Amino acid sequence: MSDFIKIAVDAMGGDGSPKKIIDGIILNHKSNKKCFYKIFGDRDLIFNLINNKMDKNFFELVHTKEKIKSTDSPLEGAKRGKYTSMWMAVQSVKDREADIVISAGNTGALLVVSKLNLKMIDNIDKPALSALWPNKKGMSVVLDLGANIECSSKNLLDFSVMGASLYTSLYPNEKPNVALLNIGSEELKGNEIIKETFKILNEKNSNNYNFSGYIEGNHLMDGDVNVIVSDGFTGNVALKTAEGTANFITSELKKTLSGNVIGKISSLLNISNIKKFKQRLDPRLYNGAIFIGLDSPVVKSHGGTDYIGFSNSLDVCYRIVNGSLIDKIKQNI
Amino acid sequence: MSDFIKIAVDAMGGDGSPKKIIDGIILNHKSNKKCFYKIFGDRDLIFNLINNKMDKNFFELVHTKEKIKSTDSPLEGAKRGKYTSMWMAVQSVKDREADIVISAGNTGALLVVSKLNLKMIDNIDKPALSALWPNKKGMSVVLDLGANIECSSKNLLDFSVMGASLYTSLYPNEKPNVALLNIGSEELKGNEIIKETFKILNEKNSNNYNFSGYIEGNHLMDGDVNVIVSDGFTGNVALKTAEGTANFITSELKKTLSGNVIGKISSLLNISNIKKFKQRLDPRLYNGAIFIGLDSPVVKSHGGTDYIGFSNSLDVCYRIVNGSLIDKIKQNI
Repeated sequence: MSDFIKIAVDAMGGDGSPKKIIDGIILNHKSNKKCFYKIFGDRDLIFNLINNKMDKNFFELVHTKEKIKSTDSPLEGAKRGKYTSMWMAVQSVKDREADIVISAGNTGALLVVSKLNLKMIDNIDKPALSALWPNKKGMSVVLDLGANIECSSKNLLDFSVMGASLYTSLYPNEKPNVALLNIGSEELKGNEIIKETFKILNEKNSNNYNFSGYIEGNHLMDGDVNVIVSDGFTGNVALKTAEGTANFITSELKKTLSGNVIGKISSLLNISNIKKFKQRLDPRLYNGAIFIGLDSPVVKSHGGTDYIGFSNSLDVCYRIVNGSLIDKIKQNI
Repeated sequence: MSDFIKIAVDAMGGDGSPKKIIDGIILNHKSNKKCFYKIFGDRDLIFNLINNKMDKNFFELVHTKEKIKSTDSPLEGAKRGKYTSMWMAVQSVKDREADIVISAGNTGALLVVSKLNLKMIDNIDKPALSALWPNKKGMSVVLDLGANIECSSKNLLDFSVMGASLYTSLYPNEKPNVALLNIGSEELKGNEIIKETFKILNEKNSNNYNFSGYIEGNHLMDGDVNVIVSDGFTGNVALKTAEGTANFITSELKKTLSGNVIGKISSLLNISNIKKFKQRLDPRLYNGAIFIGLDSPVVKSHGGTDYIGFSNSLDVCYRIVNGSLIDKIKQNI
């Protein structure tokens, strides 16, 4: 049992929980027998949902009476206290009973509860929220996505190390290219903080990553850069704008392709290709933001994802622990 | 002749100029006989390109020896001085010989040359770069897109008035919804400047527009908001990220649809629908950034667009002057 990677799961957060959480765990377990799931939530509900579909050696159920609501403000959520499923899941990581914690619940509350319970890694000033983005060649890591609205150059430097460590945890054989999100590729563009960070990164020699300079929004998905660093305000706007654009284009495409008989017939003919296209861009593949900088990793699944998306986030949890994310950050900071 | 809308055109800027500029003018003239084009550039080159394809009553040719290069820094460009095609085109608007000026040349230099020559509108502190974005219901105006990296709440308030005025110049019968680009829709989200601007806009009653609060990146293209206000750094990142995402998705789609025989056949069958889709998202439709806040409007065509895109920008010039943009701003500021 000690070789298991132990994942603390808040089963009570996000739309359609706990059913989708439990279904996600069952799905994840089918393809991965190296995880042990420590599940926090309403015992009776969850017991019925598991319904003997999983071997008892692979999970443990901890009953919690309380839960944090999605409509709570971050502080309201945290104030619901120590007996909520989210708090107890985070607490179990603090107590070293699990290696990583995941929740699909209230994002703001998860950040607050995590910061209250877990220590910062030495020499890191602020934790960051990061996520995986698809690009033409594979995946990239983007951070910060909204945990820190204003950032100093020290914060952005920390994010570079943390992002590169996350990337190499997920893709062990690659040395990532790191770039700063900016509004031009020339050295003189951008605000003072970005220019200062550029200067430091440019002079620093890291074994952990290559510094590629600035990257503009229109090149985020080219795939030449693996880690994209930004303050939380800009990163959040970029992430959501990309989501909105993807949604807009696919809805325009749908309208065009189903607007008349020829479109419908041709789409039927082409159904396997269209399916491939949808799979490639399936947001469930990229589900899961990772809160890094604390001495244990915290994963936030999208509240609106389904059990397949949640299962993918559990896979991210496994890879992060297996890839020794926290040790990599400590070695490189 | 005095009823004409007079457009000063820098014919020497952007890729493939002056040919694409002149071809764009000729195309625009075919559908619009209410414009007079005051063209600045190399006389012999342009004379050969026009080649009797346009009635002489509709244009005037002003010879210029010098031009600003796309590789110049903004200051280098401006220093090339008063005899460049760009400077002389801007100068003609200053001297009231034209109503509006357009260039496909060096953006930074155009901003500097315009600011050196043209006065600010009273009570506006900073001019802004705005553009048209497609959305599910039509078009929206977004500003600032990079002229001002850091903005005060006064700047953002000015942008609201200018953006609303631009929208009503282009779409005369609508009262636009104006929103602030932010990382959440709740009042407490965002930085201090955004929160202050929200407060003022929320208390202000404007005849010019409705204030819709905050908008997040993922809703930019829903079409419920007509004017989106942001500082230049965030706006630029959002614009370019949208471009990059659109490019990524259409290239993935192309790969999927042409990857095998069924995809190819079905795409052939569906060619008219796919064409419609491409037309809907054709970046040439949205070509042209508008620099507003100076006492004459300045339009920047994309340097890489073709003559069709340039002709669309000329159409934007016509609609801006016809819709009395500058008067509208003066009335509402």
